[in-house]
Amino acid sequence: AQEKDVLRTEKLLKELVPEQIAQLLETTPPELRHFIWEHVEPEHHGEVLAHLNEEVRTKLLETLNREEIEELAEELETDDLADIAQSLSDENKAILLEALDEDERVAVETAMSYPEDTAGGLMNSDVISVRGDVTIETVMRYLRQLGELPDNLLELIVRDRHNHYLGVVKLSDLLTHEEDTKIEELLDASKPAVLVLTPAKDVAKLFEQNDWVDAAVVDSDNHILGRITIDDVVDIIREEAEHAQMAQAGLDEDEDIFTPPLVSARRRAFWLGINLLTAVFAAWVASFFEDTLDKIVALALMMPIVASMGGIGGTQTATIIIRAMAKGVLSGPNMRALIRKEILVGTLNGLFWALATGAFAWWWFGDALLGFVFGAAIFINLVAGAVAGALIPVILDRFKIDPALASGLMLTTVTDTMGFFALLGLATVIILRHSV
Amino acid sequence: AQEKDVLRTEKLLKELVPEQIAQLLETTPPELRHFIWEHVEPEHHGEVLAHLNEEVRTKLLETLNREEIEELAEELETDDLADIAQSLSDENKAILLEALDEDERVAVETAMSYPEDTAGGLMNSDVISVRGDVTIETVMRYLRQLGELPDNLLELIVRDRHNHYLGVVKLSDLLTHEEDTKIEELLDASKPAVLVLTPAKDVAKLFEQNDWVDAAVVDSDNHILGRITIDDVVDIIREEAEHAQMAQAGLDEDEDIFTPPLVSARRRAFWLGINLLTAVFAAWVASFFEDTLDKIVALALMMPIVASMGGIGGTQTATIIIRAMAKGVLSGPNMRALIRKEILVGTLNGLFWALATGAFAWWWFGDALLGFVFGAAIFINLVAGAVAGALIPVILDRFKIDPALASGLMLTTVTDTMGFFALLGLATVIILRHSV
Repeated sequence: AQEKDVLRTEKLLKELVPEQIAQLLETTPPELRHFIWEHVEPEHHGEVLAHLNEEVRTKLLETLNREEIEELAEELETDDLADIAQSLSDENKAILLEALDEDERVAVETAMSYPEDTAGGLMNSDVISVRGDVTIETVMRYLRQLGELPDNLLELIVRDRHNHYLGVVKLSDLLTHEEDTKIEELLDASKPAVLVLTPAKDVAKLFEQNDWVDAAVVDSDNHILGRITIDDVVDIIREEAEHAQMAQAGLDEDEDIFTPPLVSARRRAFWLGINLLTAVFAAWVASFFEDTLDKIVALALMMPIVASMGGIGGTQTATIIIRAMAKGVLSGPNMRALIRKEILVGTLNGLFWALATGAFAWWWFGDALLGFVFGAAIFINLVAGAVAGALIPVILDRFKIDPALASGLMLTTVTDTMGFFALLGLATVIILRHSV
Repeated sequence: AQEKDVLRTEKLLKELVPEQIAQLLETTPPELRHFIWEHVEPEHHGEVLAHLNEEVRTKLLETLNREEIEELAEELETDDLADIAQSLSDENKAILLEALDEDERVAVETAMSYPEDTAGGLMNSDVISVRGDVTIETVMRYLRQLGELPDNLLELIVRDRHNHYLGVVKLSDLLTHEEDTKIEELLDASKPAVLVLTPAKDVAKLFEQNDWVDAAVVDSDNHILGRITIDDVVDIIREEAEHAQMAQAGLDEDEDIFTPPLVSARRRAFWLGINLLTAVFAAWVASFFEDTLDKIVALALMMPIVASMGGIGGTQTATIIIRAMAKGVLSGPNMRALIRKEILVGTLNGLFWALATGAFAWWWFGDALLGFVFGAAIFINLVAGAVAGALIPVILDRFKIDPALASGLMLTTVTDTMGFFALLGLATVIILRHSV
């Protein structure tokens, strides 16, 4: 049976591309991962590691022995090695660096010196650059000498004699011009290079907006350092989207889905605890109206309804605002117009649902005054939700706090508290005062 | 002042790339959009329209006069025209088609025949394909004749004499081989073409997994129809991510953020209404315990806390499961292992928070039995949240319902109802029975 497993695994792995193998590893319980890893073809090791999420990668690398690490040093390119080195234990990092020759070691150490989430962390060092004052014929001879060219090579980077970035020249232009044409005649100097410390997020925006497939990376003196290709940028875009989704639930997108339950539980407990605090705060506000609750039990049934309607309405507004902010070109007056619109939408829905729910509560509890209080509380909370949903993301953004992470929580605090306060406060003032 | 506005607008627009202009239009109130549009350089019109969201585009196109539409027909490529034609009124569509010559009209009508969210809807018709039995020299002569080549041209598509897809040849290979080399010697036959009706989502996956920059599109007989480039795929990935985010709040990502408030309010009212139904259902369940609530007012304050803790815990689990499903390679046994793990995490957090909240409630209300009931309800609801959070996305997926859209709603229904039921039920059985 063991042997059959091996054969089946090898067959399966042959049909998968590295990214799929990485996903397979992430969705496989940890104890089986090393077994799969051993059967991945060595030439895919680097790309598989590059696609793994951080926690899974770190754990997998811990299970490798000296031989397997030395094998990695041999197979992988320097930019991949730099990525991986950051997840290795100090001991294993030393093994890896020792296994490299001098040039490679310097390249890896340079690459490691840039933060992972910058252009420097994304770039490969496999740059092919040519001087502007040579002819197409010379370039073609040079390329033939190189033999193996990088994947997805669309254009060559053009430099001066001091390795300063000048622009790019398209391979297709090399093909369609006479061989004695000088490179500088074909140079596209309008395409900028990316500064090495540009945040990865901004790099992704540049690629998207300009429909780039690759770009040169330079230091602040305009020296060419490396090249970023679109496939790395696509990964960034995916990760960003994942981050937004996970952050809303207080989760870390780099978490291994098979983290031991006790560890997962501890991490998530934090978020549950914060939520508990906000829920308790709302309950504490409501507790000032215990007398009212004691006299009108129906209010206890209405409290969660009022809170949830405000929360939903506010979430809709906050989602729209967060998306508009992410688009990034919302100027002051337009943002104010959008906020006004959102508050108006909340008011309109508040009016509609106040009438609908008020009538419903009148029918359910057979009490017109109670129906009025319920409807009025719904109206107040839908407006409060819209106002909070519009302003909270803007305020968080101004304080450089990720709106995706904190908006939901702060919004619920507002809508829960305001919902309880409006409902119980109105009931106290209108119903109790009248009946006593 | 008017004139100053015009100058300022023109200056601003010159600094923006088409995607940024599209975002500017989306985040500008509708009445100002046509003014901006008139000052966009005509050669950017096509790309700006391609990047606009559907509702904004439709509204903008409605404001164009006959002349402006004929201008579009002149400037735009056929694939962009096909996109736009689908948003035009019948009258304007006729104007557009009339302004085209015979060949272009056929190309536009063919492109319009493929659904927008398939490979056919994504592809451009600007394919450059060459036969396998010609030499590099012939190809180079052919490319020179063409003059203007498409952007981001990395490789040429190789066909047989009947326009069947055979594979691709890299431009870099053409550069590094002798001119009398036959194309078929350099052919990469291992790169597949994309079938014209492949869903856009799957096209994006293919590009991501294989690090493609472009791909040929073929019909079911392997005839070459067009070419998809990475920039269109990047847009798909962004839209997918946006959809996931918006759907969670019951919003449509194609909505214009400046839709008139009354229209927005009506659309969002639907989602609020569904949420109201679920909240009322939970309240209805709680209403069976009115007697208990009447006797122990503190329960009214605890109800929303129990419901919200279950909801948060369940959302965390559902987010993890939805993400794991999106990765797409989660096999049966691994999925079961993940579900088991998630339920275990919920149970562990349930135990912890049951103790913490139970002790807290004991202190707050000075009643040990009430503290016990509260803690027990928290435990039950955190476990229920984990079970529901794990199973609901799986079940929705089996019924082909988008989990991002419906999971949150169904989950809250479960955790609200179960939370109220557990808290009030336990209070009735344990406290009331004991005290009477």
